[in-house]
Amino acid sequence: MCKISSEGPTIKVGVLGATGTVGQRFITLLANHPWFIIHALGASSRSAGKPYSKAANWKQSTPIPSIVRDTIVQECQPEHFKDCLIVFSGLDADGAFRSADLPVFSNAKNYRRDPHVPLVVPLVNTAHLVMIAQQQARHDPPLKKGFILTNANCATTGLVVPLRALEKAFGPVESCIVTTMQAISGAGYPGVPSLDIIDNVVPFISGEEEKLEWETLKILGNVVDGDNGLEAFDMRARQPLRVSASCNRVPVIDGHMMTVTVRFARRPPPSPQQVREALAAYTPDAPACPSAPVHAIFVHEEADRPQPRLDRYYQDGAGVSVGRVRQCPVLDVKFVVLANNVSIGAATSSIINAEVAVLKGIIH
Amino acid sequence: MCKISSEGPTIKVGVLGATGTVGQRFITLLANHPWFIIHALGASSRSAGKPYSKAANWKQSTPIPSIVRDTIVQECQPEHFKDCLIVFSGLDADGAFRSADLPVFSNAKNYRRDPHVPLVVPLVNTAHLVMIAQQQARHDPPLKKGFILTNANCATTGLVVPLRALEKAFGPVESCIVTTMQAISGAGYPGVPSLDIIDNVVPFISGEEEKLEWETLKILGNVVDGDNGLEAFDMRARQPLRVSASCNRVPVIDGHMMTVTVRFARRPPPSPQQVREALAAYTPDAPACPSAPVHAIFVHEEADRPQPRLDRYYQDGAGVSVGRVRQCPVLDVKFVVLANNVSIGAATSSIINAEVAVLKGIIH
Amino acid sequence: MCKISSEGPTIKVGVLGATGTVGQRFITLLANHPWFIIHALGASSRSAGKPYSKAANWKQSTPIPSIVRDTIVQECQPEHFKDCLIVFSGLDADGAFRSADLPVFSNAKNYRRDPHVPLVVPLVNTAHLVMIAQQQARHDPPLKKGFILTNANCATTGLVVPLRALEKAFGPVESCIVTTMQAISGAGYPGVPSLDIIDNVVPFISGEEEKLEWETLKILGNVVDGDNGLEAFDMRARQPLRVSASCNRVPVIDGHMMTVTVRFARRPPPSPQQVREALAAYTPDAPACPSAPVHAIFVHEEADRPQPRLDRYYQDGAGVSVGRVRQCPVLDVKFVVLANNVSIGAATSSIINAEVAVLKGIIH
Amino acid sequence: MCKISSEGPTIKVGVLGATGTVGQRFITLLANHPWFIIHALGASSRSAGKPYSKAANWKQSTPIPSIVRDTIVQECQPEHFKDCLIVFSGLDADGAFRSADLPVFSNAKNYRRDPHVPLVVPLVNTAHLVMIAQQQARHDPPLKKGFILTNANCATTGLVVPLRALEKAFGPVESCIVTTMQAISGAGYPGVPSLDIIDNVVPFISGEEEKLEWETLKILGNVVDGDNGLEAFDMRARQPLRVSASCNRVPVIDGHMMTVTVRFARRPPPSPQQVREALAAYTPDAPACPSAPVHAIFVHEEADRPQPRLDRYYQDGAGVSVGRVRQCPVLDVKFVVLANNVSIGAATSSIINAEVAVLKGIIH
Repeated sequence: MCKISSEGPTIKVGVLGATGTVGQRFITLLANHPWFIIHALGASSRSAGKPYSKAANWKQSTPIPSIVRDTIVQECQPEHFKDCLIVFSGLDADGAFRSADLPVFSNAKNYRRDPHVPLVVPLVNTAHLVMIAQQQARHDPPLKKGFILTNANCATTGLVVPLRALEKAFGPVESCIVTTMQAISGAGYPGVPSLDIIDNVVPFISGEEEKLEWETLKILGNVVDGDNGLEAFDMRARQPLRVSASCNRVPVIDGHMMTVTVRFARRPPPSPQQVREALAAYTPDAPACPSAPVHAIFVHEEADRPQPRLDRYYQDGAGVSVGRVRQCPVLDVKFVVLANNVSIGAATSSIINAEVAVLKGIIH
Repeated sequence: MCKISSEGPTIKVGVLGATGTVGQRFITLLANHPWFIIHALGASSRSAGKPYSKAANWKQSTPIPSIVRDTIVQECQPEHFKDCLIVFSGLDADGAFRSADLPVFSNAKNYRRDPHVPLVVPLVNTAHLVMIAQQQARHDPPLKKGFILTNANCATTGLVVPLRALEKAFGPVESCIVTTMQAISGAGYPGVPSLDIIDNVVPFISGEEEKLEWETLKILGNVVDGDNGLEAFDMRARQPLRVSASCNRVPVIDGHMMTVTVRFARRPPPSPQQVREALAAYTPDAPACPSAPVHAIFVHEEADRPQPRLDRYYQDGAGVSVGRVRQCPVLDVKFVVLANNVSIGAATSSIINAEVAVLKGIIH
Repeated sequence: MCKISSEGPTIKVGVLGATGTVGQRFITLLANHPWFIIHALGASSRSAGKPYSKAANWKQSTPIPSIVRDTIVQECQPEHFKDCLIVFSGLDADGAFRSADLPVFSNAKNYRRDPHVPLVVPLVNTAHLVMIAQQQARHDPPLKKGFILTNANCATTGLVVPLRALEKAFGPVESCIVTTMQAISGAGYPGVPSLDIIDNVVPFISGEEEKLEWETLKILGNVVDGDNGLEAFDMRARQPLRVSASCNRVPVIDGHMMTVTVRFARRPPPSPQQVREALAAYTPDAPACPSAPVHAIFVHEEADRPQPRLDRYYQDGAGVSVGRVRQCPVLDVKFVVLANNVSIGAATSSIINAEVAVLKGIIH
Repeated sequence: MCKISSEGPTIKVGVLGATGTVGQRFITLLANHPWFIIHALGASSRSAGKPYSKAANWKQSTPIPSIVRDTIVQECQPEHFKDCLIVFSGLDADGAFRSADLPVFSNAKNYRRDPHVPLVVPLVNTAHLVMIAQQQARHDPPLKKGFILTNANCATTGLVVPLRALEKAFGPVESCIVTTMQAISGAGYPGVPSLDIIDNVVPFISGEEEKLEWETLKILGNVVDGDNGLEAFDMRARQPLRVSASCNRVPVIDGHMMTVTVRFARRPPPSPQQVREALAAYTPDAPACPSAPVHAIFVHEEADRPQPRLDRYYQDGAGVSVGRVRQCPVLDVKFVVLANNVSIGAATSSIINAEVAVLKGIIH
């Protein structure tokens, strides 16, 4: 955690879908945020009008922050959020808030594939925020302050951080095969029935492999000049990257594990030791902001790490853990990744993205 | 289960390491075997002299078979097994039994790399039993009846069955990347501490990746003419196959899951549908024997199968389940495999191997 | 399993709620039943018209029995079941089938408190079937063949078997304090969210403690002469029994565990050894029937048994396991009970009840 | 946390058994302690001479505190601890340190039954510290500073806090029946094999029921005038209390749950509502000290709380949670208790005990 505003929190923020699992994470993180102060909480009409402590079926291991305990929950309509400078969203449908000229940091998947909406993993591609101006200009009517910025799928987030570090050090990765072992919290609440997952592995998560294979290209791609002199995401057209994902659900509460093997374009490829050093040395091209981890990637030396239960809370789950970096007999180098799906894989990403937007002067 | 001896069990067998986890599995399976009758049980000197029900810390979900309840456990010395036609072993050190001219079907890893000891997965390479004659001839002094035949590592077993089916249908597989999610029972008892695995994944199993990468080559290779006109395992020297394994322990009791992706030598490669059909149609080149599954490979059509808890007991765990056969964006085709590590991955394999040896006239 | 009809199954039965968890259990058990043959399967209108294999989200560890795979599922209306001699029900609302003069063996809770509906645990109180005649006579219009017979709550079932054994041997039990540790399968599917139960205990199951405290009185009570010379359940009015239950959900798939402590009316109370012997010797007052266990109660001698994972499948889950019988410093004697909630605690009970009804000539 | 020394830590402490599970907890808690500074770490001769980070197989979810990372581990001999004012012990045999005139706060069970060693739960009976003077005087030779003070078994700790609160408000409890559902961490590392506890409950923990039934009497009893005018523990001889315990291991990582039912001496007994209020209002008779919880007992109003996963970290695990207070049909009032076995049930208790000893002037 780098820089703490000395005056205390001053930026009013709202949370959409505040009673859901993602909303509860946003609230937990925002309750002690140095810049952001919770101003409005939105949920379904069933919850609206109730104090938050009655509306939410609180499932976090820390108590409901006292600061929101008695806050009256509103319906998710833009008028209730008009005094907010930032809206954090765990809702699928948050377009109306952008239309009301509100900046929306969305954890939902709906706008991720929109060609003008940045899909940003804060440890990777905050450069994509440059696209916001164009998104505002193309909106009808054009927007002054409003936009949508999405963060990535929780598993994708864990994958792209080390891939970005590798590409920064060694140039393009050409192919990547990843097998995930994903935590149940990734499915929300009630989510995965216990009868489906205790003493079991489910080798399928609907839509997840497609997200990993597609989102990775958008995140690791550049913003380039497109048609009509307008900017566009290149989706790795110039540096093709093929990703093959196999996604599994395992009986773990928090923390997505992945085995990853990659092939570099560069021949000869870097050695495992060079990879290890590049991962440990990686620093994102982003301004220093309060919720970002000190180490984007922690590289474990022990043979049996990272492990979800032991390593998911490191740096409050804001970094990514890598271990077992070694030669791959088929591609070049293989390793293991752990990312905390409920922190850097979800709400923490949205919040860092918002901090970056503040520092870049995009929020005002 | 194909052929049942009508006269009832007549072949006396012994079990080494009878009180351990593997030994308990052997006993459970042998208790109702149509051909084999348990004649001697061997364990450590601590257990020797006690009735089996007192010596074993029985951990199976079926009760101790009444047929062994009062059998007095012997020390693991060849003289106590001299009336046995077959010795099943869950012991690491079983060479002395071979020296005593006893046929040993070993679940241990010690002799798997011996250049004259077959490493046999019964659904794959019973043809390797041809090497037994040479093993006997080279022994000093030469053996008449004794030999060691090993079965494979539990994870390797699950991998080589579909690989063999694919090679039989489409020719050589060139490379294979596999990530395992292995059950705790694979580590024996007491094995994995609960503090290490509940709500967790451990991305490392000592020696396991090496076994998968090496044993696969021996099992899928041919027996060829070697030096001095003697036969030898070719270890895939003529049809190179590169295997890259990442092994993980997950909180599952029984049943090893794997995600597998392969590249064929043949261009263009077979389609996923062709692969599906070839897997379902696969029949091992082995004589029909009582403990072999009717279907070597069961191909699931549902998107979310196989799963350990639901599918591990199919055909008493003697077959292998495959699912999610689909295109791999990096190699050719990817799929999911489930093999019951305590059945086909362990004792069941040894027993089928012994049945095959009986049918081939190697036991007498 | 005592007596097997030599002619094979001849009694046509139907299953209501056939696609649900309880329905799947009924089908699994009925598929190989010596007397009963599945004739009709009923489910919601969403499933009706489909073959069973398409309609059911099959969650059992054995495959769908081939005998029902292509059976077309019907809506749950009596006309589709008119050729059935017995209807097994996992549905809450099964009264219409009784009105259609069908014998209904119900696993649901709706009629358990009806003063003319027997609540029967087959190892305990099949004598209560005598009430069926009165239930038929009081129906408007009176019924010839139809009735409802309910089996008990899954946790209650585990408790009343040893209590009945104790009362048979030592006279009335005066008070009983029971703490349950119940399996997730008791909540059906999807049932308990995994986020609520992995690495957790939930000290509350809605309505469960009331069921244990109330149902026990009906089951262990007698049928007595009531008003107008009609028979009635005495609800232990003459031999008061106070039950105090604390119910917990634990991360176990199948098998309800209970710690039980009792105080007898008789002074001095029996010793733990006498209790042990009485439990082991207990034989229900019921005709021998195919699905009943050979031993109603298995008494474990080991200090750490019974355990759900090791003991729940004993006798196909049709019996009850007791262990750790010892002095209670506050009441008289305490012990541990395990009952398989999906077998004797559910479908197995209904089926044995139906077998008893057949043997008593109540089904025709 | 009440009072924080403004000068920072100044009291040198040592940890015996520093590499074990309890030792790791001590170190985690002491690393940021306002008064205590880690001066010496003791472990087996196998670990001695190594830096702590190499000697310990660290299993906590927070990293090894940097303050001990390079501390060289010593053998557990008093001479290495002679500069410590306090020795925290996770070792069974710590008597030699007392003989060396060192104050030992022991988490081990060896001295708990010693008639001159206080057995102290800091939220309950710090008054028993008065016995230390006598312990010192009776030692041969008499001690000036050294003594042993033990904390209680982890399950006992959870039980006696609410019992003490009830006795303070309503007078003697006459009998208490408790069933525990205990976490695996209570057994240390490697502790419970995963094959024994995943999808399972083990209804036995060696020696645990005896500890609960015996320790409760010592903790809740008074110090009275004994023979020769010397003080003695009355073991509740004057206010008899019968405790009946049934102890179970469940697949929970941290946090012991208990169902408890009690009968008061007083007639009529308090109502559940009075009990609820008395528990919430309970304040220990102990000086305010830094590691003590603000609320000794948190009383939950929700029907399904406390739960280990959600409530074990409340107040850093230093308090006790109670819920579901309700009438017991057999005794008087029943409720559910959760205590974090690795915090208040272990190291946290020892540390609060030491803080109290400092405040009472017993450490100097």
